Amino acid sequence: MMEYDQFFESYTQTLQKEGRYRIFANLERLVGQAPYARWHHAGGVDDVVVWCSNDYLGMSHHPQVISAFVEGAQKYGVGSGGTRNIAGTAHAHVLLEDAIADFHHKEKGLIFSSGYTANEAAVSTIAGNLPNCVMLSDAKNHASIIQGIRSSRASRIIFKHNDLEDLESKLIALPIDQAKLIVFTSVYSMEGDIAPVEGICNLAQKYGALTYIDEVHAVGMYGEDGAGITSQLNLRDRVDIIQGNFAKGFGVVGGYIAGSKALIDFVRSAAAGFIFTTSIPPATAIAARKSLEMIAVGHDLRAQFWDRVHYFKQQLAKTHLPFQQTNSHIVPIVIGHAKHCREISDILLHQHKIYVQPINYPTVPVGEERLRITVTPLHTHAQIDVLVEALSGLWSMCLAKQSQKAA
Amino acid sequence: MMEYDQFFESYTQTLQKEGRYRIFANLERLVGQAPYARWHHAGGVDDVVVWCSNDYLGMSHHPQVISAFVEGAQKYGVGSGGTRNIAGTAHAHVLLEDAIADFHHKEKGLIFSSGYTANEAAVSTIAGNLPNCVMLSDAKNHASIIQGIRSSRASRIIFKHNDLEDLESKLIALPIDQAKLIVFTSVYSMEGDIAPVEGICNLAQKYGALTYIDEVHAVGMYGEDGAGITSQLNLRDRVDIIQGNFAKGFGVVGGYIAGSKALIDFVRSAAAGFIFTTSIPPATAIAARKSLEMIAVGHDLRAQFWDRVHYFKQQLAKTHLPFQQTNSHIVPIVIGHAKHCREISDILLHQHKIYVQPINYPTVPVGEERLRITVTPLHTHAQIDVLVEALSGLWSMCLAKQSQKAA
Repeated sequence: MMEYDQFFESYTQTLQKEGRYRIFANLERLVGQAPYARWHHAGGVDDVVVWCSNDYLGMSHHPQVISAFVEGAQKYGVGSGGTRNIAGTAHAHVLLEDAIADFHHKEKGLIFSSGYTANEAAVSTIAGNLPNCVMLSDAKNHASIIQGIRSSRASRIIFKHNDLEDLESKLIALPIDQAKLIVFTSVYSMEGDIAPVEGICNLAQKYGALTYIDEVHAVGMYGEDGAGITSQLNLRDRVDIIQGNFAKGFGVVGGYIAGSKALIDFVRSAAAGFIFTTSIPPATAIAARKSLEMIAVGHDLRAQFWDRVHYFKQQLAKTHLPFQQTNSHIVPIVIGHAKHCREISDILLHQHKIYVQPINYPTVPVGEERLRITVTPLHTHAQIDVLVEALSGLWSMCLAKQSQKAA
Repeated sequence: MMEYDQFFESYTQTLQKEGRYRIFANLERLVGQAPYARWHHAGGVDDVVVWCSNDYLGMSHHPQVISAFVEGAQKYGVGSGGTRNIAGTAHAHVLLEDAIADFHHKEKGLIFSSGYTANEAAVSTIAGNLPNCVMLSDAKNHASIIQGIRSSRASRIIFKHNDLEDLESKLIALPIDQAKLIVFTSVYSMEGDIAPVEGICNLAQKYGALTYIDEVHAVGMYGEDGAGITSQLNLRDRVDIIQGNFAKGFGVVGGYIAGSKALIDFVRSAAAGFIFTTSIPPATAIAARKSLEMIAVGHDLRAQFWDRVHYFKQQLAKTHLPFQQTNSHIVPIVIGHAKHCREISDILLHQHKIYVQPINYPTVPVGEERLRITVTPLHTHAQIDVLVEALSGLWSMCLAKQSQKAA
């Protein structure tokens, strides 16, 4: 008979051998202490500076968002008690969906448990139901989109990352009246680069495709009102479906899509990942709406955020660190080797009390292992200086070791 | 070119014609008011009695659980800020996973965003990675399990609902050394019946299969310590993977699995639906742990719960209502027609201020449309009497109309 546990053990042993076994840092991110967190480890507890959170704007610790959450819980409790259809639609959900629609200048919004679920459910439901639909998906789309594509069982074409020419060559080969869904991302999480949104919309119009944009790493930080790259570029009306989440720029949890009344009503009615799951707690919805309201007018917060991002990039440019020049707030430093990446991260954490999680396969391809650094408005210039110095020193050491090996 | 919105509209128009277009009841479930909720509708706002919540024990409004949630938010904020691997493992998650393991007498626990995600991710990852694995899935398993089966791309065999003979006939036809995963549910949500857990475990042992049980509708209500049917039947050690959630009996939100160290470490390392999504807020984890602690010693609450359930069933037995006799707390009244089901539900809501959502396809098969009633410890005997009388009257009316039509 099959020895199941033996198989499971051998699976994780392989990861360990390849240096990509994931060890989660056990953290207490205490309100008022950011960017510091208390790190629990075998040797005890230490305060570390966190440089890899997706709580990009620190909204998860914002006093007014916490108050909204607390008051929501005191008024409505801690859970919704049901799926949206079965006793689980709270008034707070309805208000949040209205706010999402307004935020993205769309007719309707729809909330999901997470951004992952939003992508998985929406992509699979749209492409899976449109007759004979073909998806055109950017090569660097997130795992949740890939999962949605797989679940849809519709045919899919991968186009080269951010490559309009390649996308057009694929569109032109398809019958003009065939249903098509172009799925792409505004700010790519692990690359930090930004999609040619207008070019994609032009192609979609020319070839009769529906457009779906993932804005989870953009909402909060981009655009005059924080409504992402489609807001910044004034292209909200040219993209059919805008997907986002409340877990990063907004600092809470949950995901959403926004689009036309017809589309949202269809997804609401057909998506298993929406229908068959408990809705988010009303308190969470209330906190997300408060965060969204503050984000929409959060010009000072965004200014402070971008000041820190630009300062960090300026300081990096003075070093020989292999960081990727991007137009976004995400700064990848590509180490290119799982074990080295983990080693640098370990030394940063243990010796410098700097926490940057190594990013290995499957989150990035093998050979592109990286440190992915995110700066928040709460990091100071002085803390940035310390980080850059530590990184720079470790990278020199890493290079020296490599050339020693080569010699 | 394709007219997308036209397609989406026609989709929902079909649902409307078939009487299975879902209209969500917009509710405010105010703390201290349960089982009443404020229902917002076109005509204004009314207080209604909710009879279809999955907040089975009313834990979502429990003062101590709310306090835990509030204190958690004040200490740690409203979001985790990352995926479990990237700055999103809070100390509160680690403690909750330890508590889950203890609760189910397993080595390890693992948290997901929802019960849906737990099933989808765990089933697809286990079956999708075990070499040449075949799944044996009960015909009435939840949509999230079916989604996990689809995602895994492994071969699957559906066995007749709760039918040991059929399951054995399928197992016996497979090579003894082939990897097998039997997936089933302890309390079936829409049927309210209970799996023959021991029989399934015996077959699994005989034919070398791994066993996976969905206990989401059981944890909280069954067993001396509330740890579900596997606890009640003293079979925790005979089932390999126990899946549950925090959204029903526990009253919060989120899902989990519990199992061996090797299995949990494998799922943690391989499941996209676990890896690529923001972890639940620390405050949610803290509330879930508090709820679990109280559930584990909540004998009085469970006694009150079962008193109400038994009283309801006794009163129903005195009527001619087509309710299904079950051994669980779930009471389905099978109307068998989408439009009638919605009609009865509408009259209950508008005229009697009683809220029971109609359950239509795809949640149940066409022809098995039903009212699914859940009684909580907070419902009084007097409220149960009112419900039974209203249901009984409407059912007589429904039968009269049908015989009129037939005549």
